[in-house]
Amino acid sequence: MALIVQKYGGTSVGSAERIGAVAEKVIGWRKAGNDVVVVVSAMSGETNRLLDLATEVTDTPVPRELDVLLATGEQVTIALLSMALEKRGYPARSYTGTQVHIRTDNAHNKARIRDIEGKRIHADLAAGRIVVVAGFQGVDDDGNITTLGRGGSDTTAVALAAALKADECQIYTDVDGVYTTDPRVVPEARRLARITFEEMLEMASLGSKVLQIRSVSFAGRYNVPLRVLSSFEEGEGTLITYEDEAMEQALISGIAFNRDEAKLTILGVPDRPGVAYRLLGPIAAANIEVDMIVQNVAPDGATTDFTFTVHRNDYKKALEILNNTARELGAREVSGDTRIVKISLVGVGMRSHAGIASTMFETLAKEGVNIRMISTSEIKISVVVDEKYLELAVRALHEAFDLAQSPTV
Amino acid sequence: MALIVQKYGGTSVGSAERIGAVAEKVIGWRKAGNDVVVVVSAMSGETNRLLDLATEVTDTPVPRELDVLLATGEQVTIALLSMALEKRGYPARSYTGTQVHIRTDNAHNKARIRDIEGKRIHADLAAGRIVVVAGFQGVDDDGNITTLGRGGSDTTAVALAAALKADECQIYTDVDGVYTTDPRVVPEARRLARITFEEMLEMASLGSKVLQIRSVSFAGRYNVPLRVLSSFEEGEGTLITYEDEAMEQALISGIAFNRDEAKLTILGVPDRPGVAYRLLGPIAAANIEVDMIVQNVAPDGATTDFTFTVHRNDYKKALEILNNTARELGAREVSGDTRIVKISLVGVGMRSHAGIASTMFETLAKEGVNIRMISTSEIKISVVVDEKYLELAVRALHEAFDLAQSPTV
Repeated sequence: MALIVQKYGGTSVGSAERIGAVAEKVIGWRKAGNDVVVVVSAMSGETNRLLDLATEVTDTPVPRELDVLLATGEQVTIALLSMALEKRGYPARSYTGTQVHIRTDNAHNKARIRDIEGKRIHADLAAGRIVVVAGFQGVDDDGNITTLGRGGSDTTAVALAAALKADECQIYTDVDGVYTTDPRVVPEARRLARITFEEMLEMASLGSKVLQIRSVSFAGRYNVPLRVLSSFEEGEGTLITYEDEAMEQALISGIAFNRDEAKLTILGVPDRPGVAYRLLGPIAAANIEVDMIVQNVAPDGATTDFTFTVHRNDYKKALEILNNTARELGAREVSGDTRIVKISLVGVGMRSHAGIASTMFETLAKEGVNIRMISTSEIKISVVVDEKYLELAVRALHEAFDLAQSPTV
Repeated sequence: MALIVQKYGGTSVGSAERIGAVAEKVIGWRKAGNDVVVVVSAMSGETNRLLDLATEVTDTPVPRELDVLLATGEQVTIALLSMALEKRGYPARSYTGTQVHIRTDNAHNKARIRDIEGKRIHADLAAGRIVVVAGFQGVDDDGNITTLGRGGSDTTAVALAAALKADECQIYTDVDGVYTTDPRVVPEARRLARITFEEMLEMASLGSKVLQIRSVSFAGRYNVPLRVLSSFEEGEGTLITYEDEAMEQALISGIAFNRDEAKLTILGVPDRPGVAYRLLGPIAAANIEVDMIVQNVAPDGATTDFTFTVHRNDYKKALEILNNTARELGAREVSGDTRIVKISLVGVGMRSHAGIASTMFETLAKEGVNIRMISTSEIKISVVVDEKYLELAVRALHEAFDLAQSPTV
């Protein structure tokens, strides 16, 4: 008998009918002999409805009161799901974040979970009940309601799984797992049976929006096996765990890409210590996040060239700042490009296998794709290429690394 | 500087615009130097929306989960009103029933308040904040969310006023006070400046649906001055307090009437000890509430005639039961009438003034209104008459007792 924490998102509980379907799914796991704790989000559309109400009242809602307002969304769902379970003859009990002491700091709208009291839940499970917990919300030390921000329900599920020492945390969503790459770009893309936390973090941060980064890193930290499954179809989904010695890792787990970046370049900067800070300091001060950074010494040996990427929304502002800095530093030239994409190979197998980068570059060269930037980490190689090459490049790499094949497990 | 508890119902907070208007009203009282605690209901329509959702999920929602669901209605309103107050520059803080420890028993859907912890609210008031509390809801000893049932927000306001030792509890509603009688029947009906708790209880239970009986009796028990005012108009409303020696009481405060009753009569019941119990026991056992009861010894001296009233909805069932009882007891005849109304004069002045009953009977006789039943209490005289005489009788009594005149205060 295992203890399973399941999380169902807003679309999965978007109507009375779907709540009924979730109840059936939960009961299936219960019938198989498991203890089940269910975490739910607000019904799809509900959070926006509440935000609209707030906007009608004020342009700048007080964060504390916004949390009081938004927390009602999940509270509605826990009540309805518990009713649906009881109707089917399965004793259930709902809890708000406050009721099961999901203690957070007091950063309203983006609070972080500190600890969870598992006693009450364990008592209910021991009494044979299914426990339904409101995602996304918690309570601070003074009893104020807090919310965790975007993707908060995933975090609630993982934190609960950690606190209860659950055997598995299952995140039900509208896709049936994590894929080697986006199936809309590569129809042969394959669902991964397993992936490591580190790989998942790289995939997620690069735009595979299946899971929130925060919940993956949380699961990794507390070593909670995480499984992504579909709410609407049957299937094993994708299990996210630590690297298992018993399983032979594929070289590459997947290919992520990101269309949201823009590239900025400053050429001929007099090369002095601290130049990187003088360039990026003003960008950071404007609250713009910088992703890839590449620096080369220019052919003349006395100046340096510097390229970095930012989110496309921040491009204009970053360009303006960089032009100012260029004048101050006496740089030769500033240029930028918004029509680029970042493509990344991700795989823990890279650690022990050489030659992956060269295969990647060779593949892209064969297809005539010009690489504009390269950046590597221990389990990832990223390149920036012109936007128009995205599909061509991803498909070629998917084939070159045999990702459509089932890996040896 | 006074401490005032105000309660605004669902219609008063039915839209973002109306919530803004309530905020202005609250701020008016705050500006005048008062500490203000506001109790709000769910926005009008919200409770029904939630009930519909529950009905879509199950025909028989678990009471515990229904409370979790319904409690979100007021939680939305407290957040929005607090935002509206903050937007206007007035620090505010919202609290759910759980957060300010409105402790109730565990009778879900109809819980009763046991006590309220005022510490947190007093601290906020001392810090210059307006406090906004969710009506209708509380928390039991195990931390479960409870709701108080119909009219619960009025009860919350009165209980809070008692716990905080407030100077006044103001109930804002869609009428501007308590009237001498229904203005739709008597256009000359006059708003009462004051009325006693006892009179208000009689008026409320007789169909003047301004306030819930429960909250009036609660206010009376804890001696909380209660004021009924309009959310939409200016005015002093009606103050409900204990009898004040300084104020000369009018003979009659008002005329209440009730169209919801039906009359049942059993004639020629052999008069034995315990006959009332044998007649009414089966009615009570069927969960039917009996209102007026009149018993006369019949002219023959050996049998008794017995008349009582029940709610019209219960009439058919009561008649059936009474027919059975009549057979068992050997009574002569059973009859009934649904086309009756009850009209009552209410006033604490009756205690010290004789002749009110005779004036009442004389007035009705002059108008040719036949009295079918009479029942009196210390501060009330009720008569049952044919439905068709309702308007005629109420208008004649309103004039006979000079109710359109302003009383000497």
